Amino acid sequence: MTYELYYWDGIPGRGEFVRLALEQAGADYADVARNDGGMARMMAIMKTMMGGVTPFAPPFLKDGELVVSHAANILLYLGSRLGLAPEDEAGRITAHGLQLSITDFVAEIHDVHHPIGVSLYYEDQNDEARRRSENFREERLPKFLGYFERQLRKNGQGQVHALGATLTYVDLSLFHLIEGLRYAFPAAMTAVEPDYPLLVALNAQVRELPRIKAYLASARRLAFNEQGIFRYYPELDRR
Amino acid sequence: MTYELYYWDGIPGRGEFVRLALEQAGADYADVARNDGGMARMMAIMKTMMGGVTPFAPPFLKDGELVVSHAANILLYLGSRLGLAPEDEAGRITAHGLQLSITDFVAEIHDVHHPIGVSLYYEDQNDEARRRSENFREERLPKFLGYFERQLRKNGQGQVHALGATLTYVDLSLFHLIEGLRYAFPAAMTAVEPDYPLLVALNAQVRELPRIKAYLASARRLAFNEQGIFRYYPELDRR
Repeated sequence: MTYELYYWDGIPGRGEFVRLALEQAGADYADVARNDGGMARMMAIMKTMMGGVTPFAPPFLKDGELVVSHAANILLYLGSRLGLAPEDEAGRITAHGLQLSITDFVAEIHDVHHPIGVSLYYEDQNDEARRRSENFREERLPKFLGYFERQLRKNGQGQVHALGATLTYVDLSLFHLIEGLRYAFPAAMTAVEPDYPLLVALNAQVRELPRIKAYLASARRLAFNEQGIFRYYPELDRR
Repeated sequence: MTYELYYWDGIPGRGEFVRLALEQAGADYADVARNDGGMARMMAIMKTMMGGVTPFAPPFLKDGELVVSHAANILLYLGSRLGLAPEDEAGRITAHGLQLSITDFVAEIHDVHHPIGVSLYYEDQNDEARRRSENFREERLPKFLGYFERQLRKNGQGQVHALGATLTYVDLSLFHLIEGLRYAFPAAMTAVEPDYPLLVALNAQVRELPRIKAYLASARRLAFNEQGIFRYYPELDRR
């Protein structure tokens, strides 16, 4: 059965964490909203008053009749099916906990450029965004990166992995997190990366996985831009 | 085995979503950080460099050696064990998706009073908070409440439940969400509650569950206050 991923076209966004897992597993999937008529299908699923619970927002995944919403929930669901999660229950729960911390971090990264409201333009909350970016760079960025670095250090021998000795979806998400932060805060990241050698090593290691490498070079990989979560506004980066 | 819940003392906070499930199930649990020496034990678990992954932040649950982090992950873990989740996998995944939307909403509610940074005092981000509260009351509050109301309407016949015909942890969390919003935004909630009759009915229904009723009247239930997620600042409420 083909997995159907539903996510906005035009930005990597939260859908990208799911895409990376599907790509690394070589899974059969459709990126529905990027195909003809796909946006209409996505909106129809979200708005229907028939059937069961509908997603609050994309991304969501359809596997046959089952609809799985929220990126972390999708990765929990796909992890064992795609061989990208620990095999034991304790490991799967721990992986999901890490992914939920990534989720929280991603929300904070988004809110740096949208501290007042998602419905307002960036230009209409620019002063607040500058103030928030300062707090983000000084406190939140080192807090989250330091946390993930410590988890890698605890686990690490040889190849870098968040959990155990094999690749999981958490590693793929941490790869993308570093990619996004480098895009959005190039000066800040250049300054702090030496403090996080294992995150940097993990990023390089994932980038060289044959399937990920092919994916990154393909048209399926969307570029970061100023419509997504990770946005480059020079005034929000380190001076 | 006694479940050990770890969460800050003094506020209901994110720990409350877990407490309500433990209380409704009559589970044997310890609220560790509220007992003598408990704060030190909580911090020791978070800071250790021994063993596996540590939580990014409370709440977390210990069940024997297993540490489960993030409220939604804890509820996913406890749901089937406490009889507060659907029995089939599809139902459990759907319940978790709803809980993750509650998680997102709770984060937005928190950020109304802390739009610039969690480390700054409210007084130092009061102007930004006023602006964000306006956007929250006009757009985010109706968007989230409308979403949850529609899910209840789809499911509802007789007793109100988010999923199927029985009580789940999602119902308990929706109860608490309404309680918190009433505390933080009394004027706004008085104005909009008629639009959400099923959420209001579910709240009343949960409040009368014998174990929840006893819990709410006990010293174990902490009062809302201006250190937590749901804070009452009149200037952020509807005029």
